[in-house]
Amino acid sequence: MGIAGEIAIIGMGKTKFGDNFEKSYFDMVVEAAHGALEDAGLDALDIPAAWLGTCYAYAYTTEGNAGTSLAEPLGLYDLPVTRVANYCATGMDALRNACFAVACGEYDLALVVGAEKMRDVPPRGSLVAQHVEKGHPLYCKGRTAPGMFALVANRYADKYGDVKEAMAKVSVKNHHNGALNPKAHFQREVTIEQVLRAPMVAEPIGLLDCCPTTDGAAAVIITRAELAKRYTDDFVVIRGIALSASLGYFSAQFQPDWDFLGFRATRVAAQRAYEQAGITQPFDQIDVAEVHDCFTITEIVNYEDLGFCGPGEGVAFISEGVSALDGALPVNTSGGLKSYGHPIGASGVRMVIDVADQILGRAGPRQVKKPIDLGLAHTLGGPGAVSCVVILGG
Amino acid sequence: MGIAGEIAIIGMGKTKFGDNFEKSYFDMVVEAAHGALEDAGLDALDIPAAWLGTCYAYAYTTEGNAGTSLAEPLGLYDLPVTRVANYCATGMDALRNACFAVACGEYDLALVVGAEKMRDVPPRGSLVAQHVEKGHPLYCKGRTAPGMFALVANRYADKYGDVKEAMAKVSVKNHHNGALNPKAHFQREVTIEQVLRAPMVAEPIGLLDCCPTTDGAAAVIITRAELAKRYTDDFVVIRGIALSASLGYFSAQFQPDWDFLGFRATRVAAQRAYEQAGITQPFDQIDVAEVHDCFTITEIVNYEDLGFCGPGEGVAFISEGVSALDGALPVNTSGGLKSYGHPIGASGVRMVIDVADQILGRAGPRQVKKPIDLGLAHTLGGPGAVSCVVILGG
Repeated sequence: MGIAGEIAIIGMGKTKFGDNFEKSYFDMVVEAAHGALEDAGLDALDIPAAWLGTCYAYAYTTEGNAGTSLAEPLGLYDLPVTRVANYCATGMDALRNACFAVACGEYDLALVVGAEKMRDVPPRGSLVAQHVEKGHPLYCKGRTAPGMFALVANRYADKYGDVKEAMAKVSVKNHHNGALNPKAHFQREVTIEQVLRAPMVAEPIGLLDCCPTTDGAAAVIITRAELAKRYTDDFVVIRGIALSASLGYFSAQFQPDWDFLGFRATRVAAQRAYEQAGITQPFDQIDVAEVHDCFTITEIVNYEDLGFCGPGEGVAFISEGVSALDGALPVNTSGGLKSYGHPIGASGVRMVIDVADQILGRAGPRQVKKPIDLGLAHTLGGPGAVSCVVILGG
Repeated sequence: MGIAGEIAIIGMGKTKFGDNFEKSYFDMVVEAAHGALEDAGLDALDIPAAWLGTCYAYAYTTEGNAGTSLAEPLGLYDLPVTRVANYCATGMDALRNACFAVACGEYDLALVVGAEKMRDVPPRGSLVAQHVEKGHPLYCKGRTAPGMFALVANRYADKYGDVKEAMAKVSVKNHHNGALNPKAHFQREVTIEQVLRAPMVAEPIGLLDCCPTTDGAAAVIITRAELAKRYTDDFVVIRGIALSASLGYFSAQFQPDWDFLGFRATRVAAQRAYEQAGITQPFDQIDVAEVHDCFTITEIVNYEDLGFCGPGEGVAFISEGVSALDGALPVNTSGGLKSYGHPIGASGVRMVIDVADQILGRAGPRQVKKPIDLGLAHTLGGPGAVSCVVILGG
């Protein structure tokens, strides 16, 4: 049977994303979880099981390593609480595991919280600095995230021609959407010129091509689809959810079959999720998407990897406004990682909520005007090593 | 429906536990996983999904943070691989999540690997040292694991009378069993006198009351019980599996209702697992058990928390030989954490394998002489905060 079509999301909550210096990890978990409970009309004591997605416990805070980091702030003692970590796919994989448990009938309800506290450290305490200190075999050689994705941008430009201006257009689009979003980390527009003139991080990736590091938490409550109407009329159904680990983390750049023009993990996860949801023509059938724009080049190759357009057509896809808020397939209407921010464990859950909000007509000034039947959320983690794709429908 | 009775373990593998300086984290993952595959008569490419249990990624090694740490060493690319972390319940909770996915029909098979590499660091790189360096709110105040469990031992002695000699008997019993186990970290007997005269770590816990830190990996392959006979005749069925987060990690010692005489997490997890398995009289119905003897006092309170005997009767339980290899309810026939060692993410999976081996009559010189119908495996993590209990049967 499996989980496709079996699970409904009946409650959603999230914190403001940003420099949440005034909120602890626990504060954010409580705010997101209670937002979801309130949305579903449930009390915390109604919840029989929970999943927590936090990627880098101990790197930034002392919280997040185990289920207790969800049980403790909520006072939800005696519950089974699992902690999942899977790079940037962490939040969605926590959701995926909760779906299995509810689908098999072990629980009727589950709470899923994604949370990451990334801003309470000085630069020398950053993830990269810590990894270098521990002798990380890749970071020590300078292979950081911007450096790795810059290789993709350069390879893409070499194969298909200049991509720098198209990358800037992704930044402009996502900042435009984020400016409409009161929960986004950055809520201001940027211009093409600002993006092109921003300080260079890793050629051709400039500062405004990069998503920020961010504090934030997001939560959903799920039940079996057949039970959803007991709780609310405002629910969405998970039509497909698939994870793929398609590349090694430490040997990523040595994989002989990697062309640096996209990410196999995304393609595999999308193909599986599409099969589950009965999607054969992604561009025609998907109405809105949140995709993993950790860097602007990533969003462009995501269009291609997700089958929204063909290889090399990502530049036209952004440049012709297809992915704009009023385009044929609006992408990152929330502002995306670029503008919303990227608290790693939280992002996957947050993206699912933003797609659900579009389906339910709750996206406010970012609401897409056309009717939304099916939406997609996508995360990509490690050096393109892990991807999760979720398809949501009414 | 749920998972109780629905899942069978059809393949098992594990490395030698110990100072595996000659084996990397990846080496151990490969050895354990391929042991399980060979045992099940399967090829790695037969596996559609996997779960990895590693508790402290980055604390000891750079591996273990995500599903890629299983996909990469096995070359199992394109698979969904989830990493779970839940203190000492990590390995069992990885198994539990895999059970949900197989029970709901998403996959027919799943590979579960628990692994931890703990010995490749100098003492100043130990977990406690690293936590102190990061400003861990409890470790900085000296509340280490031996210190915390010493509070339990002292409270127990205050309430029920001297427990130090009974603790020593747990060490003697588990070293005796471990001496029969070629995969145990320590394979030698100790005497009561040696345990009582060992250097004091945290009064009354001496060096030979403590389990060691250890390298190791263990793996199982599961399928739905109805499919098990396709693969092998040597399988066991999971009759119950339950997790509980019953205490906060950071506020553990401030919980007003904690009497320090046992662990609520164990009691809650056991109660749920017993209900699933139809167990009403644990002592009468369970034939063999692997329990979490991180310290000898922990095994004694486990007897009580698991309902093997009443409150305060744990001392008699060990002293009268009830839990000995030839006793009425043999406990830690493998040698336990005390002698087998405790690679955190691996232990839960390893314990399940040792109980399964007893049920299948494969425990060699440690095989219990009486027939074994039902066995129990139990982990307890954090400061008694998280527990998982698994009931296995034929």
